[in-house]
Amino acid sequence: MKKIQVGVVGATGYTGEELVRILAWHPNVAVSYVSGKEDRDIRIQEIFPYLKNRLDLECKAFSQSEAIEKCDLLFLSLPHTVSMQSAPALLKAGKKVIDVSADYRLKNVDVFEKFYKTSHKDTANLKQAVYGLPEINREKIKSAELVANPGCYPTGSILGLAPGVKKGLFDLSGIYIDAKSGVTGAGRKADKALNFSEVNESFKAYKLFEHQHVPEIDQELTRIAKKDMSVIFVPHLLPINRGILSTIYARLSKSMTTEELEVIYQKFYKDEPFVNVYPKGALPELKNVQRTNFCDIGLRVHPSGKLAVIVTAIDNLGKGAAGQAVQNMNIVCGFDETAGF
Amino acid sequence: MKKIQVGVVGATGYTGEELVRILAWHPNVAVSYVSGKEDRDIRIQEIFPYLKNRLDLECKAFSQSEAIEKCDLLFLSLPHTVSMQSAPALLKAGKKVIDVSADYRLKNVDVFEKFYKTSHKDTANLKQAVYGLPEINREKIKSAELVANPGCYPTGSILGLAPGVKKGLFDLSGIYIDAKSGVTGAGRKADKALNFSEVNESFKAYKLFEHQHVPEIDQELTRIAKKDMSVIFVPHLLPINRGILSTIYARLSKSMTTEELEVIYQKFYKDEPFVNVYPKGALPELKNVQRTNFCDIGLRVHPSGKLAVIVTAIDNLGKGAAGQAVQNMNIVCGFDETAGF
Amino acid sequence: MKKIQVGVVGATGYTGEELVRILAWHPNVAVSYVSGKEDRDIRIQEIFPYLKNRLDLECKAFSQSEAIEKCDLLFLSLPHTVSMQSAPALLKAGKKVIDVSADYRLKNVDVFEKFYKTSHKDTANLKQAVYGLPEINREKIKSAELVANPGCYPTGSILGLAPGVKKGLFDLSGIYIDAKSGVTGAGRKADKALNFSEVNESFKAYKLFEHQHVPEIDQELTRIAKKDMSVIFVPHLLPINRGILSTIYARLSKSMTTEELEVIYQKFYKDEPFVNVYPKGALPELKNVQRTNFCDIGLRVHPSGKLAVIVTAIDNLGKGAAGQAVQNMNIVCGFDETAGF
Amino acid sequence: MKKIQVGVVGATGYTGEELVRILAWHPNVAVSYVSGKEDRDIRIQEIFPYLKNRLDLECKAFSQSEAIEKCDLLFLSLPHTVSMQSAPALLKAGKKVIDVSADYRLKNVDVFEKFYKTSHKDTANLKQAVYGLPEINREKIKSAELVANPGCYPTGSILGLAPGVKKGLFDLSGIYIDAKSGVTGAGRKADKALNFSEVNESFKAYKLFEHQHVPEIDQELTRIAKKDMSVIFVPHLLPINRGILSTIYARLSKSMTTEELEVIYQKFYKDEPFVNVYPKGALPELKNVQRTNFCDIGLRVHPSGKLAVIVTAIDNLGKGAAGQAVQNMNIVCGFDETAGF
Repeated sequence: MKKIQVGVVGATGYTGEELVRILAWHPNVAVSYVSGKEDRDIRIQEIFPYLKNRLDLECKAFSQSEAIEKCDLLFLSLPHTVSMQSAPALLKAGKKVIDVSADYRLKNVDVFEKFYKTSHKDTANLKQAVYGLPEINREKIKSAELVANPGCYPTGSILGLAPGVKKGLFDLSGIYIDAKSGVTGAGRKADKALNFSEVNESFKAYKLFEHQHVPEIDQELTRIAKKDMSVIFVPHLLPINRGILSTIYARLSKSMTTEELEVIYQKFYKDEPFVNVYPKGALPELKNVQRTNFCDIGLRVHPSGKLAVIVTAIDNLGKGAAGQAVQNMNIVCGFDETAGF
Repeated sequence: MKKIQVGVVGATGYTGEELVRILAWHPNVAVSYVSGKEDRDIRIQEIFPYLKNRLDLECKAFSQSEAIEKCDLLFLSLPHTVSMQSAPALLKAGKKVIDVSADYRLKNVDVFEKFYKTSHKDTANLKQAVYGLPEINREKIKSAELVANPGCYPTGSILGLAPGVKKGLFDLSGIYIDAKSGVTGAGRKADKALNFSEVNESFKAYKLFEHQHVPEIDQELTRIAKKDMSVIFVPHLLPINRGILSTIYARLSKSMTTEELEVIYQKFYKDEPFVNVYPKGALPELKNVQRTNFCDIGLRVHPSGKLAVIVTAIDNLGKGAAGQAVQNMNIVCGFDETAGF
Repeated sequence: MKKIQVGVVGATGYTGEELVRILAWHPNVAVSYVSGKEDRDIRIQEIFPYLKNRLDLECKAFSQSEAIEKCDLLFLSLPHTVSMQSAPALLKAGKKVIDVSADYRLKNVDVFEKFYKTSHKDTANLKQAVYGLPEINREKIKSAELVANPGCYPTGSILGLAPGVKKGLFDLSGIYIDAKSGVTGAGRKADKALNFSEVNESFKAYKLFEHQHVPEIDQELTRIAKKDMSVIFVPHLLPINRGILSTIYARLSKSMTTEELEVIYQKFYKDEPFVNVYPKGALPELKNVQRTNFCDIGLRVHPSGKLAVIVTAIDNLGKGAAGQAVQNMNIVCGFDETAGF
Repeated sequence: MKKIQVGVVGATGYTGEELVRILAWHPNVAVSYVSGKEDRDIRIQEIFPYLKNRLDLECKAFSQSEAIEKCDLLFLSLPHTVSMQSAPALLKAGKKVIDVSADYRLKNVDVFEKFYKTSHKDTANLKQAVYGLPEINREKIKSAELVANPGCYPTGSILGLAPGVKKGLFDLSGIYIDAKSGVTGAGRKADKALNFSEVNESFKAYKLFEHQHVPEIDQELTRIAKKDMSVIFVPHLLPINRGILSTIYARLSKSMTTEELEVIYQKFYKDEPFVNVYPKGALPELKNVQRTNFCDIGLRVHPSGKLAVIVTAIDNLGKGAAGQAVQNMNIVCGFDETAGF
């Protein structure tokens, strides 16, 4: 079978690295282009020695023409606001684009501009971009030219809430998400607050109520609920490299048991290759999902029957970023959805 | 000034070690007795080399008569259910006892027996035991013979909720505590689930709704609220040594602002030497409280005015165990409450 | 192509888990049998949820007859001294065996008995066992019935020294190996000394000069040197899950430069798929080799020209155990040596 | 007793913070001045909340006149090359100065300029500066105006070697120091290479043979040996916050036993309050020295009698920086040498 040619723009960040790692072993693709913003041109294998015998390419500053020439499909693993400057030309040249940044996720430009503090520069493509959460949006993704790959927090939050929201189980005004993320979620960058000794052996909450992923969660849950809703979202910084565990508190509209809730969730996700609803009140832990594309879900209803606690676990670089981006590519290209995993 | 003679029973666990560490530098006490359950008799300085030039004693199996002979006051840092077998004789001999275990915390014996799965063996002393949370119970502690030192999770939870509960600010049916604890909270023991590689780089929730600290939190908050109440409590295991961060969600009975809530909390704790209510929505992190006896508190009211999020940070071995036990000793003995810190 | 049937005996330890993880994705094998010593029979997918959609088998106590019936080849991932009780029957039944324990590594029974403090129970098979370090022993492995998979420390040490020892570059009386290992090297077990809080944020040397891997290193280097030699070996415990970094100090018999040494090492390993000799004095770090089967090597000669420092990095569960075991299986079975990686 | 007024210049770095932490509890001093290079003026208690009830001062950019006005003695916890611009005026004003940077450690200006890549700007004071390693230099420190506080690596290395070098036990051409340091050793700064996820769960050697602490070790050991000598020094980066463990390999000039070596070391350090020579081949671990001013030393002679392995453990911010600086202050000011610890 002929392989498609894919490129990773921004290959030296954590998500970019994970994309290259997955794609270099993917049976249906050849990685034909990588770019990164480093001090100098350098071979990708020198940056990531484990690619030996698997992939070697020059990693240079991004060149639009080279990307267009060498690739059928591009992953944009760029800082927010940079993607929307690169995507239009690639799309115009007929390339498929999977954007891992936040630039095409929020349909409401005002909300985007409020949370990302910049004007949107590509509203034309924003309209046609498909939010790339396969469990919710698979049909639309199949024919997408531009996939807006979901944020890491929204992935764990939406997958944890979708079945209950869809079925009308929850009091939509009483949903609290207490989320804890590993440090790669903040990107590979020089920042005193991310210095090892600032984070290691510590733990904190941050950006209460105002994290830029809140409007993304609200937008998608509103679509599922078919009515306006907004969650309370409190993120925390975990002193680990990878993984997001979200403990979600949802008041139940009417009383039910853990077993009843499990049946509903298992049914909702029964054909999903990358969602794992645990049986019998078992609870996920991050080590089970690290370096996978899984979202593991554990469920418990309080003995009062009035409150559900839903715990979801993902790898923020896996199902929360690069893994999901490859899953989206598989869908867009008609590959087996689990290819490469 | 004459120093009192104190003993630490169970000196080789994490809390026992922290007690010895604090007491060895305390200006008003002489550590005159340490016991531990080790393979062999050993000098405490050989176990904890940093005690060099400061404290050296033989650390042997517990002997009731030796403890009584050598000490004015004893800290019992023993596993739950073991303390209540040792305390009666010590109390009978006229010694003050500060029990760090759970044996004398729950006033309702049925609740104790349900959560600790054993019958209570010293209900006589249970009645007179004083729950040792100074910020709530200082007056009673002053004259206590037996102090039941609070659990680590309850300390962070109750201090975070007390001002609001007392003032009637919260809807008592809507309080959720999402707590995250370092691993020393589980004790110094051989347990496959606590093996370094099982915990490191991972994270999980455990004992949802059924942790043995829940009835303790409920008992004390009920006393403060002057009406029955029960919280939702979800503990998690953090891959760090020390510290508990509790993110508390409390629905407000009537709308208020972050500033208004801060004023109430700051007033409530204004004379407290070990509670630190942060100003201007600042949030605590564990590194600020590790190896201290502080409880740091950060507050935020959701823009809707309907929900308060209270974040408390303590060292589970400090304010959550050994530090608070020494604070209780200071109160019981009439020392400066901050002596030794 | 028809797949061979393989079994993993001891599938729930760290090495066993890693074997299952690699083999479940290996194109030439079907995992047909797993056993483990757990409290109860349990499906392997319940223990390791990431196996969903990939592998599911009952994991029970080891049964010799079931193993023989279901498998063509078996990995024994058992504690030392247990393997040699299971291997004889499997070999007699015509199965290939790759033993990950230490039972068949040391040819000298007296040395084995001294270091492992037990008598050897299968000296017959010990004679024919092949030490499974492919870079040194590939030809013999091809026809082996029983492969003794090398220890983790010996793998990193021998691969770092082999080229120089072979070429007679080093003063054999002056080789010091300062090795640092992650905690999974000690196995998945309940042990107070391996409790998270004992290891985390700490670091120590242990078993100076007397580690059981020393005779293994000496045996193999003696074979390569064609003269008796013995190294100084000092292991340390790193507070990380996976990886061994060995800093090797070797006095040079005659003066040379870093560049000259690199040329010799690169030539020695030029056809090796899993050894990566870094150019230009670059040095390995553990993150580059974790979850791979690579041994990365960095070299530096002191400006005096008299001392070489060789730094090797492996994943103790990869090239140091499970990865190498699968590499050995590939060789034994005539598969592509890199299949499954 | 009247307290002296002390200032900490550079109070917001890791060493500065540790200085403030120790000094705020020191019985003989009042911290009267702190400066730091932050974005804005801020109270020190807002930066380090655990100082509540203990110390509160405005932390501003450094002002020479204010420092002189408010202090009797100053700690300079500044980046290398900045100290020598501030010290001259302070000394001229009659203040005692303890410099924690490297500016006054190397007596040979050429060597300083080679390793720190800058010209020396205060050679006058360099001459009179006393190298502040109390165990070696106590008498000179007593009357020093300017103390050059030793580097962290040199402290652990020199204390481990001094007794043997002094006694002529070692072959001076065969000393290798394999040192492993926690991350605070690199300072509190924004640096991509120190980002949590770059360091966590990894390990590497760096700056082989060329670390700037090598000439410092060589200078001091040469002084002790009374003949030129040079060590082989290989530093590594440990994924922990604090601590340096140095594994030192020293060939013995003549054969001896572990017991004989221990006797020599214990005698050498018998009156030292902060050196702990372990008995019976026991080995130090970092958790025993963290947050102390101790240097713990373990000793082993290889069964051949030809090689000593000396393992030293310090806290790089304690005995390796701030702790030792306070010990030096105690000596300079005639306080009890253990005051404040």
